[in-house]
Amino acid sequence: MRGTLYGIGLGPGDPELITLKAARLIEEASVIAYPTLAGGDSFARAIAQDLIPIGAREIRMDVPMTTERAPAQAAYDTGAAEIATALEAGEDVVCLCEGDPFFYGSFMYLHARLAEKFTVEIIPGVTSVTACAARAAMPLAARNERLTVLPGPLPEDELRSRIEGAESVVIMKVGRHLPKLRAVIDGLGLTDQATYVERASLPEERVLPLAQAPEKAPYFSMILITKGADPWL
Amino acid sequence: MRGTLYGIGLGPGDPELITLKAARLIEEASVIAYPTLAGGDSFARAIAQDLIPIGAREIRMDVPMTTERAPAQAAYDTGAAEIATALEAGEDVVCLCEGDPFFYGSFMYLHARLAEKFTVEIIPGVTSVTACAARAAMPLAARNERLTVLPGPLPEDELRSRIEGAESVVIMKVGRHLPKLRAVIDGLGLTDQATYVERASLPEERVLPLAQAPEKAPYFSMILITKGADPWL
Repeated sequence: MRGTLYGIGLGPGDPELITLKAARLIEEASVIAYPTLAGGDSFARAIAQDLIPIGAREIRMDVPMTTERAPAQAAYDTGAAEIATALEAGEDVVCLCEGDPFFYGSFMYLHARLAEKFTVEIIPGVTSVTACAARAAMPLAARNERLTVLPGPLPEDELRSRIEGAESVVIMKVGRHLPKLRAVIDGLGLTDQATYVERASLPEERVLPLAQAPEKAPYFSMILITKGADPWL
Repeated sequence: MRGTLYGIGLGPGDPELITLKAARLIEEASVIAYPTLAGGDSFARAIAQDLIPIGAREIRMDVPMTTERAPAQAAYDTGAAEIATALEAGEDVVCLCEGDPFFYGSFMYLHARLAEKFTVEIIPGVTSVTACAARAAMPLAARNERLTVLPGPLPEDELRSRIEGAESVVIMKVGRHLPKLRAVIDGLGLTDQATYVERASLPEERVLPLAQAPEKAPYFSMILITKGADPWL
């Protein structure tokens, strides 16, 4: 009998924001898989580390930091093949994912490679979006309001038109795109309604008005914009 | 010393999708608050029921089911006053919220009434958005893709233009708006890319292609539309 692949969302970083289900599956795991950045540390593994059983086998996927496609594709090909071998041998595999597996998560690349052949169960996790809103004390959307999620690397023109037409906006993956994003948001006169959040829920978290954001932002940073609260309150 | 108000996200319905932090705070609570629909059952309380300590005091907020504002506002005014009395007496109050408190959650109405005067901590939860995507096996957004969240009660024209300009779309609060939503999605030629999810993560969950959705949808139902996967895989 073949094993099941679990894609497990771990939430934004605070180990207490792991769900009870994710915690149980990790504690019962005999094979655990996770991506690492260029052979370095794995953020996903760090979030889950206190739950990983002693003696569990660990499948590391070293994903190179590059915008080229082929090296990253090769890393997921290799990881998927190793996971497939375990599943074929009847072992369940627990794949650790920061945030939620289907929301800007690298698990999607494994899902695309393995879901047709094996049973996959996705355990959703708390996303950085609601974690940032919680820490910034900024409600995201109420009643009939709309929410738009945009990745920071999008071109300037597209960011401008999408922010302009939206109510609440969340910009993910800010990192090195911060100067461009500042310029767009300033140009729209929205800087006063924008909040910068870095590493939400971790000890080194920072929450600041966008005007006071640092010069350099890490990859795990976000900008929230809300254009006036619902008057219904 | 004044107590702290905790706004606790409970996730989409499966009690195992509660976070470790939310579970701990509920288990330690002496005062618990939650909304009920028109004096009936509380979905939030049902999700958390196995964690509520025996002897905890419960503050119920009976929110009437109406599109009129005044009766609901009065219910939140009354609830906020009762919570404020407990906080002023030095008691912590744990407020139970389905999903995430700041994502279409009724907790926002309490936050607006109490956050200036009291310490409030928000515990983010798994939203129905990623829970539905997990159960439908539909990745929401990868790499530089955009995600738009729209409430079903929006007018037809606005829904049409917003769905047209988006990549992945999540439509919340489908309920009685299902016939209108079907017509809009059909008109855009997107029915084959749309999935209907009802009560995600609960035993009575249903996941169906939109074309096979039932005539009548409950309030807790959603439509996911994805316009073709990222070719990067």
